[in-house]
Amino acid sequence: MSGNQALVEIAEQMVPQLHNTVVYPKQVIEVIPQADAFQGWATTPLHSMDSLEAKSYGKNEQFIVDFGDHQVGYLSLSIKPVGSPPDAPLRLKLIFGEMPCEIGESFEDYDGWLSRSWLQDEIINVDILPCELKLPRRYTFRYLKVIVLDTSRKYKVAFTDIHCTTVTSGDLSKIEPLPEHMSEELKAMDRIGIRTLQNCMQTVFEDGPKRDRRLWIGDLRLQAMANEYTFKNYDLVKRCLYLFGGMTLEGGQVGACLFEKPKPHVDDTLLYDYSLFFVATLYDYYMATKDGDALEKLWPIAMDQIRNALRRLDEKGVVKDDATWWCFTDWHEELNKQTSAQAVLIYCMKRGLVLAQHLQRAEEVQYIQDQINLTSQAAIKYLYNEDNGLFTSGSEHQISWASQIWMALAEVMDEKDNARMMERLLMERPTIGMKTPYMYHHLIEALILCDMKDEALKQMHAYWGEMVKDGADCFWELYNPEDKRLSPYGSNLINSYCHAWSCTPSYFIRKYYIS
Amino acid sequence: MSGNQALVEIAEQMVPQLHNTVVYPKQVIEVIPQADAFQGWATTPLHSMDSLEAKSYGKNEQFIVDFGDHQVGYLSLSIKPVGSPPDAPLRLKLIFGEMPCEIGESFEDYDGWLSRSWLQDEIINVDILPCELKLPRRYTFRYLKVIVLDTSRKYKVAFTDIHCTTVTSGDLSKIEPLPEHMSEELKAMDRIGIRTLQNCMQTVFEDGPKRDRRLWIGDLRLQAMANEYTFKNYDLVKRCLYLFGGMTLEGGQVGACLFEKPKPHVDDTLLYDYSLFFVATLYDYYMATKDGDALEKLWPIAMDQIRNALRRLDEKGVVKDDATWWCFTDWHEELNKQTSAQAVLIYCMKRGLVLAQHLQRAEEVQYIQDQINLTSQAAIKYLYNEDNGLFTSGSEHQISWASQIWMALAEVMDEKDNARMMERLLMERPTIGMKTPYMYHHLIEALILCDMKDEALKQMHAYWGEMVKDGADCFWELYNPEDKRLSPYGSNLINSYCHAWSCTPSYFIRKYYIS
Repeated sequence: MSGNQALVEIAEQMVPQLHNTVVYPKQVIEVIPQADAFQGWATTPLHSMDSLEAKSYGKNEQFIVDFGDHQVGYLSLSIKPVGSPPDAPLRLKLIFGEMPCEIGESFEDYDGWLSRSWLQDEIINVDILPCELKLPRRYTFRYLKVIVLDTSRKYKVAFTDIHCTTVTSGDLSKIEPLPEHMSEELKAMDRIGIRTLQNCMQTVFEDGPKRDRRLWIGDLRLQAMANEYTFKNYDLVKRCLYLFGGMTLEGGQVGACLFEKPKPHVDDTLLYDYSLFFVATLYDYYMATKDGDALEKLWPIAMDQIRNALRRLDEKGVVKDDATWWCFTDWHEELNKQTSAQAVLIYCMKRGLVLAQHLQRAEEVQYIQDQINLTSQAAIKYLYNEDNGLFTSGSEHQISWASQIWMALAEVMDEKDNARMMERLLMERPTIGMKTPYMYHHLIEALILCDMKDEALKQMHAYWGEMVKDGADCFWELYNPEDKRLSPYGSNLINSYCHAWSCTPSYFIRKYYIS
Repeated sequence: MSGNQALVEIAEQMVPQLHNTVVYPKQVIEVIPQADAFQGWATTPLHSMDSLEAKSYGKNEQFIVDFGDHQVGYLSLSIKPVGSPPDAPLRLKLIFGEMPCEIGESFEDYDGWLSRSWLQDEIINVDILPCELKLPRRYTFRYLKVIVLDTSRKYKVAFTDIHCTTVTSGDLSKIEPLPEHMSEELKAMDRIGIRTLQNCMQTVFEDGPKRDRRLWIGDLRLQAMANEYTFKNYDLVKRCLYLFGGMTLEGGQVGACLFEKPKPHVDDTLLYDYSLFFVATLYDYYMATKDGDALEKLWPIAMDQIRNALRRLDEKGVVKDDATWWCFTDWHEELNKQTSAQAVLIYCMKRGLVLAQHLQRAEEVQYIQDQINLTSQAAIKYLYNEDNGLFTSGSEHQISWASQIWMALAEVMDEKDNARMMERLLMERPTIGMKTPYMYHHLIEALILCDMKDEALKQMHAYWGEMVKDGADCFWELYNPEDKRLSPYGSNLINSYCHAWSCTPSYFIRKYYIS
C-alpha cells in the first residue's frame, strides 16, 4: 500500500457520529415454506410481543420475532430466570435474518463460496441471570430467531425486553417528502431506496451492512448520487474519497474497496472500472459541493487513475482484453468487458476534463481531450458494428446489454445515434443480459440520457417494482425476476438484501421524475 | 429467602482480591483414542508453541494446546491475518477441556441430565483482525482446542499469542513444604490436593470451578479443613459462613448451596445433612481462629439448624425416613440415609455443644446435651444390630458403608467398639458402597479417629493414589477405580475434574502424617 497519509488523517477526523434509534420487535411470527412466496418462504404472525414476555422458554424451545422493517444495529435482550435460581448457564442460539430464507433454511447446510462467517448467528453462554445481554457485534436483520439450547431442569427463561439500537449516518430529517400526486408505487420505491441507502450509511458508505460491510468505490459512486437527492451528507462522501485517495495500491491505482478497522487499509482487489470511478465520484462531489479544497487535494490521484487506465490501450486506442485483468461491470460470468471498460474510460475522462478545466490545468486539459478523442474514435472504428448498429466486445465480438449501455453513457455518438442504439438494444435484447441492480442502474441512466424517460420508468417498475412486490424492505444486491433464488455465491443465504448499488430509484425519482 | 442482611453485607465486604498468574500453553498435542488410557483417551505431543505461531490456519483447520496443568482463568488469543486483508469475519470454535475426553468426544452428542451449558465451548465471530481476543467468561481447563470454522478464500490466520490469566484466592506462598522424607506418592497427592483446593478458591470456596462454580456447604466444610493446613485463608471461610448464615431458607434452614451473582442469593435446595454442617463448619472455624465475634453472630443460626434437625425425630428419637426429604450423604441411588443422617445430627450437636459451652449458654448446653443423649441412645437401641455389630438404616435395615462411617464419626460408641465396628466394616465390605471422594474422605477420617492410621493411608493410596496414576492434575468429583467412565449425570464429559470435596488428601497428610 502506498499513498498519502495526510489525506487519510483528514478522513479520520471526519468519522461521523451515528444516529441511534431504539426499535422494538413488532410481533412473534412463524416462517413457513410456501411455494409461491419469494424464495419459497413466507411469514405469518403468531402472537404479540406482550404474550412473548409472559411466556417462559426451556431447552430446545424457540421463537422468531419480526422487527417490521430492515434494521442495522446492536441487539439487546433482557432475560430473567423463571423457576428455581439458575443452577447452570443459559445457552442461547441467535439467528439473524434480513430475509425469511435465513430463518427458514439451516446455516449448517451452507456451501457457498463466500465465507460462512457472514451468516449472522451466535451461540451465547450466559453465566449470570437475570441479565441484559448487549451483543457487541452489529447485526443487519429484520427477523431474529432465538433458540434456547439449554437452561437446566430447575429453571426456564423469559425475555422481558428485546430491542435493537439502530445506527446510521443518514439523517432522515434532511429528506424532502415526495409530492402528494406521485404514484404509490414510486413512493414505495423511493422509500425503500432511502431505507437501503440509510442502512448502508455508517462511518463510510458500506456496500451492504450485512455483507461486505465495507467501502467499495462502485457502490460509493451510486450512493453519493442518491445521497445528493436525499440525505445530503456530503461530508461522508468526502471522507470516503479521502480514504480512497489516501491509500492507493502499489501502482498508484485506487483500490476497489477498503476497510476502516483496526485502522484504514485498502484491499488488494484492483478493478479497472472501479479505479476510474474515483474520477467520476470526485466529479459528482465537486459539482454538488464546489469544494475546491478537496478538488485540489484529490485531483492528482484522479489524474493518476486516468493515466493508469490509458496504459492499457493498445496501439489502436482500444482497451486491451486478456485473461490477466479484472473489470467489474456486472456479475456475469460470460460478459466480455472490453467495450464497457473502454466506455467507462471515456465516461470518466469526460468528467476528469471538466475538473481539469475548473483547476485550469491547461496541459492536462489538452492531454485528456486528446485521449477522449483517440478512445472515442477507436470505439467507433473498432468496437462499433455498423451493420447492426450495436457495439461488440472482445475477440468474439460479443454483443451485450452492458456494452451498449456504457457506450451510451460515454456519449461517443451524438444524441440521436445514442438514442437509436438504445432503441435497437431494447428491440434486439441480446442474450448477454444484465445481472445486477448495479447494471440496471446504468440502463435507467442511459435511457434517461437518451430522452427515453418513459421507457426508463417502465424498466424501473419492471425491476425494482417487482422487488417491492416480492416484499423487499430494502433493495437487494441481486435480483432476477426470472430466477428468484439467484446467487453468484452458491447460496441465496449469503446474498446481501440491503445493498448500496440498488438504492438509486430514489435518485432517479427525485432527480428526474418530480415535475 | 429469609435471613439476616447484615451478615450478607459483612460477607460482601470480604470479597477477596484474586491472585493472577499468566500461564502459557506448553505444547501442541493430539488427543487420541487409546483403550488402556483413562476414559479411553491419551494425549501425545505434536510440536512446540513456537512452531504453532509460525503456522497459519484456514477453514476447518484446528489444533489442540496443552497448558500443562489444570487452570482456572481468562483466555486471551492474539490472532493475525495471513494473506490478503481479511474480507470476511473469522469464525472460530473453542473447546476447553479439563480432561482429554472433553477434547476427544463431541459435545454435540451429549445427552446427560445436567445442562449441556456446562460443557465449555464457544463459537466466536471476529470482525476485525488482527485482534487480541479476550474472552469475558472464566474457563476451567488444561486443554484448548481451536477450530477455525471459516476465514475466507483470501486469508488465513495465525495465533501469535495464547495465554490464560489464572485466578484464585489461595496464596501458594502460605503453604509449608512437606518434609523431604515423605514418599513421592504422598507428595504428589498433597500437591494435587492443594491444586484442587487452590483452583476452587475464588471469591467463595466453589465446589468445582467448571461445574457448579458455586458454594455448597458440604464442600465448604472439607475445603475449610484443608485450608487450615494449607492456604490458611480464614477470611474466605468466614465470608462463606456469613453468606450461608445471612441467607437462610423460609424455615430458617441453611440452604445447601448459594450463588454470588448478580447478588448473593441462596438456592432452594435443602439437604438435611448440609444444613447441619453449618454447625460443624462454624465449630472448625472457631477452633482454628477463636473468632468470638463471628461465633456470637453466627451461633443463633447454628442453633436453629440443630433445633430444625431435631424436629425430624420420631417418638423414639430417630430421624424419620420417608420419601419427602433429601439428605445427601453420598451419590448413591440405593443408599438409605436415615442412619447417616442420625449420625450427622449427633456429630454436629457434639460440635454445637462445645460452641454453646464457649458462649456459656447454659440452657442451650443442657438442651443439646439432652438431645445428644437421646439420639445416641436411640441410635444404639434402634439402628444398631448387635448380631453383626453393624448399624442398619431404614425400614429394610440396609447395611452400608456410609452408615458405619458416619456412626463412627458421631462416636456413639466408645473408642474400642467404634474401632471394632470399623474393622468389621472392612471385613464385611457391604455391597452398598462408597461412590464419591466425599464419602471416601469420611472413611479416612473415621479410620484415623479409630486409630487405624495405616489402614487409612492404605485406603488413601488405593483411591486418590489411583487417580494420580490415572493422570489427575486435580482430584475429581467422581472416581471409581472399577468403572472409570462413571458419571451419575449420564456422561463423563460433564463430571467436574477439579472438585472441592476431593481435596482432602492434603488435609490428612498435613494433619496426621507429618511426624
